[in-house]
Amino acid sequence: MSPNIHLLGIEGMSSKQILKILKRSDFFLNVRKKRKLETLKGKLVINLFFENSTRTKASFEIAAKSLSAEVLNISVANSSIKKGETLIDTASTLNAMKPDFLILRHPNSGTALMLSKHVESSIINAGDGRHEHPTQALLDAAVIRRKKGNFENLNVSICGDISNSRVARSNILLLKTLGANVSIIAPPTLIPKDIDKMGVNIFSNLDDGIKKADIVMILRLQSERMNGTETPSRREFHHLFGINEKKLKNASKDVLIMHPGPMNRGVEIDSLLADNNERSLINDQVEMGVSIRMACLEMLYEIRKNLNE
Amino acid sequence: MSPNIHLLGIEGMSSKQILKILKRSDFFLNVRKKRKLETLKGKLVINLFFENSTRTKASFEIAAKSLSAEVLNISVANSSIKKGETLIDTASTLNAMKPDFLILRHPNSGTALMLSKHVESSIINAGDGRHEHPTQALLDAAVIRRKKGNFENLNVSICGDISNSRVARSNILLLKTLGANVSIIAPPTLIPKDIDKMGVNIFSNLDDGIKKADIVMILRLQSERMNGTETPSRREFHHLFGINEKKLKNASKDVLIMHPGPMNRGVEIDSLLADNNERSLINDQVEMGVSIRMACLEMLYEIRKNLNE
Amino acid sequence: MSPNIHLLGIEGMSSKQILKILKRSDFFLNVRKKRKLETLKGKLVINLFFENSTRTKASFEIAAKSLSAEVLNISVANSSIKKGETLIDTASTLNAMKPDFLILRHPNSGTALMLSKHVESSIINAGDGRHEHPTQALLDAAVIRRKKGNFENLNVSICGDISNSRVARSNILLLKTLGANVSIIAPPTLIPKDIDKMGVNIFSNLDDGIKKADIVMILRLQSERMNGTETPSRREFHHLFGINEKKLKNASKDVLIMHPGPMNRGVEIDSLLADNNERSLINDQVEMGVSIRMACLEMLYEIRKNLNE
Repeated sequence: MSPNIHLLGIEGMSSKQILKILKRSDFFLNVRKKRKLETLKGKLVINLFFENSTRTKASFEIAAKSLSAEVLNISVANSSIKKGETLIDTASTLNAMKPDFLILRHPNSGTALMLSKHVESSIINAGDGRHEHPTQALLDAAVIRRKKGNFENLNVSICGDISNSRVARSNILLLKTLGANVSIIAPPTLIPKDIDKMGVNIFSNLDDGIKKADIVMILRLQSERMNGTETPSRREFHHLFGINEKKLKNASKDVLIMHPGPMNRGVEIDSLLADNNERSLINDQVEMGVSIRMACLEMLYEIRKNLNE
Repeated sequence: MSPNIHLLGIEGMSSKQILKILKRSDFFLNVRKKRKLETLKGKLVINLFFENSTRTKASFEIAAKSLSAEVLNISVANSSIKKGETLIDTASTLNAMKPDFLILRHPNSGTALMLSKHVESSIINAGDGRHEHPTQALLDAAVIRRKKGNFENLNVSICGDISNSRVARSNILLLKTLGANVSIIAPPTLIPKDIDKMGVNIFSNLDDGIKKADIVMILRLQSERMNGTETPSRREFHHLFGINEKKLKNASKDVLIMHPGPMNRGVEIDSLLADNNERSLINDQVEMGVSIRMACLEMLYEIRKNLNE
Repeated sequence: MSPNIHLLGIEGMSSKQILKILKRSDFFLNVRKKRKLETLKGKLVINLFFENSTRTKASFEIAAKSLSAEVLNISVANSSIKKGETLIDTASTLNAMKPDFLILRHPNSGTALMLSKHVESSIINAGDGRHEHPTQALLDAAVIRRKKGNFENLNVSICGDISNSRVARSNILLLKTLGANVSIIAPPTLIPKDIDKMGVNIFSNLDDGIKKADIVMILRLQSERMNGTETPSRREFHHLFGINEKKLKNASKDVLIMHPGPMNRGVEIDSLLADNNERSLINDQVEMGVSIRMACLEMLYEIRKNLNE
């Protein structure tokens, strides 16, 4: 089997591969603002986003430009999707323009895999439906690694809207691969059916689920992906599952919190907690986002270069 | 008369000029992915699009960046047109920022010519109403030239919504200039009145019009430009004028098909045919699009450079 | 007090500082199209626009790229503001990606100052509500300086919708700092209450206000910022305050007119006058816009560089 030139998900990645990316992102974190790297000079990256996004799109664009690539942004609102073109036709068209990378975000699960069979460029999945968002999980792990050193026996609790969250899925897969203990905390209606097969502990009570946690990952309440019947109201959700300093009392003393953003302040996360720099890693996550995407772009570029030699 | 620093249409271009661009695009097709060219280093290209477009806008942007130009994208949705500014004021404003090229797409015929009288930068018409879309015709010809060698006595049938199509107009002008035999095939309501003056054969029956065709150019059914009364329904159109393998039986044995995209699969073109790489040149067209636009940018740049010397 | 790494407004700037920027923009006006400067190579500029804008956004983008910076455009329509994120969270997120400059336009007065307290990058205010738009005032002054030499005893009349205009506010502050005599002309309902504290002469009659003017600055009628009750109709406004050649009869013989654009032709300004190149500095203003923004970017960059040494 030939090496994978795409980054479609955490599923199937080895701990060795993951750790290599985490280490490399540390390198980029240090050098990015000091000098411009030329790794991808003359290469073309297309950001193909079928969902609104500020941070992820910007993060990929900055990462690619920091490696001297050219970046083209295509968002659905301006695209010929409106003219009734199929997704595969759009991708084939873009592929014919010979980009080196296609960064894809799409509301449907499995889209990244499907496209990877129709194009020659490397696809990076920037979030496909409820499936995966691998660079988010990698950047989260890179931040954890800087703070905690390693993952063995680390207790990570992921709290909130698990069933709608590709971030949760990718994080569980990654954290289990690196040896962490993972708990999920959610109202029963927001827990996916087969989640127990992923080797996580399941809690529908916050106090129980947070016990001895070293890291609490708070998920965004994805109200735009919910149909209105499956969850408690935002207010009720906040009361039962919204995280604040007080609710962390059962966690490890030096527990740290994370959130992939954008936050619903006062819903899944308390404002004071979000802004508490001793507890909150939220800005570290964004900063690491650029570095991890640089590491992913570089890794795929080198795999392709070796294939062609 | 001074040399034309704009590319407003195929009308008025000589076969010599056209062939020079086609040859040059072959060169760019080969070198583009191998090394970054610096022809337009420090030059500024503004993409000014008043209609939605993925492929054409992206194609120009990639072409310009492949020559090391800076590219600025302005699309109507974000523009001050919304504040009631006239088109000429918008163009004058942009002109005052001293771009070297203005790539213009606009729903009104004649807009490119009108603007060329108000700006100092070189205008490339990327489609104006039902008038012209010269780079599309040039890229189509470049693809044909690679496959068929030359245009003398080549039989090209253009099928579909002729009356709404700037692509058809530019292609007819170009193909006739290079010596091809051009037939058009369309329902009577979609044939423009004065089309016979362009020296084409006119058919309203597909079987007749496609006879001995070496190339069949299939046009997009421009439902967004039609008012609903002038055409048969999509289904009826498909039945009478939609192209599939079977309907090509009267054409030349090695007939090739083209489509400017985006396709309405199952309307003007059958899906199996579109994806049949032995017949379909659709991806070649997109790939050539970048090269032809590089050739056009370079040509205009050199004309201006010579004028200034 | 440490030097200011932001450009939030004209308020607080000394005449020495202002004149330094004006002179430097003259330099950029001459060299910009001749060679690409590398002042900001490897630096990142984010254009963060919460209001529609063609010219200002494009002007900043061209200025930044002319100094070899990378530019990222974020406009509110595509942003996660839609997902309910607060402005400060958006800015913190972007800040964590380590841009060197944040160019901000926002409908609320004071936003630029507020953000400057939450980010490490240099903020340039590209217009915040009715507060300030400093680069517009600087470019206007740079154009006046080229035409009139200096500001002492220069008579400048600003006419139109003063109360809704950040352009008027910034221009008054700047022109008074440089020693000009400033008159404002507007219907009583469009004159802000405390305007007399700014040291201007106030007129609600055009003929009186324009007397001996060397420069007439015509403001855009900001109908999108008015609630419909405070002004005369557009037609009545045009009759009383719309400027044409004839109404300039009381002004200085070689009076020049300016407009920040986009113009409402036939409302605040007559079309013939706008297009009269002997009177109108409108295109000079746009051209100078790029140069003045280059000067501002360079100035802030050097302040920061000196701080870090």
